Amino acid sequence: MAKRTAQDIRRRNRFDALRCVFAAAGPVSRQEVAAATGLSFATVANLVAELLEAGVLREAGHEDSKGGRPRARLAVNAERGALVGIDVAETSVQVELFDLALTVLRSVRLPLPQNDVRPDDVVDAIVTGVEGLSDATGASPRILGAGVSIPGLVEREGGVSVFSPYWSWRDVPLRSLLAERLPMPLYLDNPLKAGTVAEMWFGAGREVDDLLVLTLRAGVGAGIAVDGALYRGATNSAGEWGHTCLVRGGRECRCGRQGCVEAYVSTRGIARTVRELDAESPLLDPDEDAVVSKVARAAARGDAVAVEAVARTARHLGEAAADLLNLFNPQALVLGGWVADRLGEPLLRQTRDVIAAHALPATLQALTFQLSTVPDNPVSLGAATFALEGFLDDRETFGTVAAGRRAAREAKARTS
Amino acid sequence: MAKRTAQDIRRRNRFDALRCVFAAAGPVSRQEVAAATGLSFATVANLVAELLEAGVLREAGHEDSKGGRPRARLAVNAERGALVGIDVAETSVQVELFDLALTVLRSVRLPLPQNDVRPDDVVDAIVTGVEGLSDATGASPRILGAGVSIPGLVEREGGVSVFSPYWSWRDVPLRSLLAERLPMPLYLDNPLKAGTVAEMWFGAGREVDDLLVLTLRAGVGAGIAVDGALYRGATNSAGEWGHTCLVRGGRECRCGRQGCVEAYVSTRGIARTVRELDAESPLLDPDEDAVVSKVARAAARGDAVAVEAVARTARHLGEAAADLLNLFNPQALVLGGWVADRLGEPLLRQTRDVIAAHALPATLQALTFQLSTVPDNPVSLGAATFALEGFLDDRETFGTVAAGRRAAREAKARTS
Ligand SMILES: [Zn+2]
Ligand SMILES: [Zn+2]
Repeated sequence: MAKRTAQDIRRRNRFDALRCVFAAAGPVSRQEVAAATGLSFATVANLVAELLEAGVLREAGHEDSKGGRPRARLAVNAERGALVGIDVAETSVQVELFDLALTVLRSVRLPLPQNDVRPDDVVDAIVTGVEGLSDATGASPRILGAGVSIPGLVEREGGVSVFSPYWSWRDVPLRSLLAERLPMPLYLDNPLKAGTVAEMWFGAGREVDDLLVLTLRAGVGAGIAVDGALYRGATNSAGEWGHTCLVRGGRECRCGRQGCVEAYVSTRGIARTVRELDAESPLLDPDEDAVVSKVARAAARGDAVAVEAVARTARHLGEAAADLLNLFNPQALVLGGWVADRLGEPLLRQTRDVIAAHALPATLQALTFQLSTVPDNPVSLGAATFALEGFLDDRETFGTVAAGRRAAREAKARTS
Repeated sequence: MAKRTAQDIRRRNRFDALRCVFAAAGPVSRQEVAAATGLSFATVANLVAELLEAGVLREAGHEDSKGGRPRARLAVNAERGALVGIDVAETSVQVELFDLALTVLRSVRLPLPQNDVRPDDVVDAIVTGVEGLSDATGASPRILGAGVSIPGLVEREGGVSVFSPYWSWRDVPLRSLLAERLPMPLYLDNPLKAGTVAEMWFGAGREVDDLLVLTLRAGVGAGIAVDGALYRGATNSAGEWGHTCLVRGGRECRCGRQGCVEAYVSTRGIARTVRELDAESPLLDPDEDAVVSKVARAAARGDAVAVEAVARTARHLGEAAADLLNLFNPQALVLGGWVADRLGEPLLRQTRDVIAAHALPATLQALTFQLSTVPDNPVSLGAATFALEGFLDDRETFGTVAAGRRAAREAKARTS
């Protein structure tokens, strides 16, 4: 049975209160946070006191008062410290520095070797990137934590890349390897989880609690948020939608199975669709990413093969998504990943029609369906958000130590 | 954003504490409840005080003390009141009376008209059943609530049967119709949700928090528990696994789509599998329920068609379940519903093999897979559990009114 300690509940409330400040267009009052989260004013006041003391929030003036006492406004204290978000992709590593408001301050991309990428190569690229950022920032605030997204199955607590599909790594203790060379707290997870967390804090997830995020890149997956929290499953592998079966006995997938969703709507899947339509198509390219970009441009100018490739991709995507929606019945479905970004509105529109024809009416009733609005790059942004979440869990700052400090100070104030 | 009020948290904790007492083989101490739920001893003591006052729990002796102070033991106060669980099925309505420990006291089954079942027929059967129970119980405790399970899509808050697949009802305000004739609080939901709640309180869900329950009857669906709570989705239609696509362009389904999971592993689906294997098979019967029972018996004595029908059902079930497991990555998968019960161990064993061949390794790693151990009938038991949950939500008993009463009494105790 779940163990929900008072600590867990407090942590969850702290996240909700802060997400609410992030979600607002400008500074907000404690009253607004209470209204948006459903927490009592007293609880919010308490959480805000803690976040102010930790320097995560700052006072930002007062609301216009119409007779009543003016209400203090709160904002994220962007200068409190920096966060790093790292997106390890197949051919390169992107390292981004964010302030505490999750605004990008600096971004570098480092190439990986073209063949036979070893764990050391990834570690070197990450360390070089982070050190470059630190140097450049000079006297800027200290880095509170770094989140690393790496494709495949990740064992989060241990910080282990259990399986990486690109490089066939198994059980690489990436966090330990990085910890020898980087001084800040490190958080490891995969791009699917990172992209979904970014969506929860900065995208469609700000509005709803039950959310699915479909990510289309070289890999394909579904990020799941239930009741406002990322759903991971028993071994952090929930959302392996890419390797569920779309067509029994269909296309071979790189996972060894047949007919997987990924074999139809990933970069490779779309390239294969083009090849099936016209084996001589000028849209074809050994670089499958390039095929998707070419398809997007050619479809926009009405090229028949490109238009049909988008239509077939929408059909596959819509049929697979309809089943997923029947299972999860979420409030919002978001289409993300650079493939979705590139194919854009035409893909969204046609996929919506396929979903409408295939999903159950009850499933469609409460659903919104949109392209991701999270600014580029959702994966490094999400990785940095993991570091933010880690900082919000820090016991020195928010745990019993801080509570004891606060209590002692309050006792002193009472006696003096 | 989710609103989690202090009231919600308290309610959730109350459920957890009580589920823990139900799950125990005998009486438990407050210390054991605290250890099992992760709640603090003070919180548990508080919740227990409330449940004792409401008469839901009772003191049940003391633990053997080895030197220390003996610990009081607690048990469910079965005599506190009765609950009714009602399972509306295609051809009959089962009405069961439970004590507060959810032990069946009495059970009646009332037939529905063979054709053209109208809402009034169902209401009449339910009212007749409940009144029969009440008469028979004579001086027994009052009924605290009744839960009604009705197939199809249910709008819970309003108590409306939005769509019933058997009778093509739409928007029948069943709870309002019943409320005119039955005096107790009424709770409406569907068999999938009821069976899953029964599993959470009395089956595999006592051990884990993330759980899938596959129900095989005339209809097929997946019940989903996330983090120890039933997952309903945006319109209470989550878990519509029966109408996700197993075989593109496959068998026609009664929903109008092709290749749905239900078309393969429901009673009708299994009857069709038998017909495909041998159109003249003596296992065939106009009553599809009878076909499943015959298949189970014939397979046990080695009948070739029956053995192959079970094998094909296991293949379909396993392939569909593997995808579901890849998406949800639960700790436990339970196979329930009377079809699973009838086909039993052979179906379980073969399905397990298919799942092992199709699901991702990470998905299988932490998974247990078993037949439901919830005693017959899980649907009426689950419906009665909804009534129990409703009673635990009752503001008169557990809300601010009761808290005010308690505070006044405590204040009085202090001053006297
Ligand atoms: Zn695959
Ligand atoms: Zn169907």
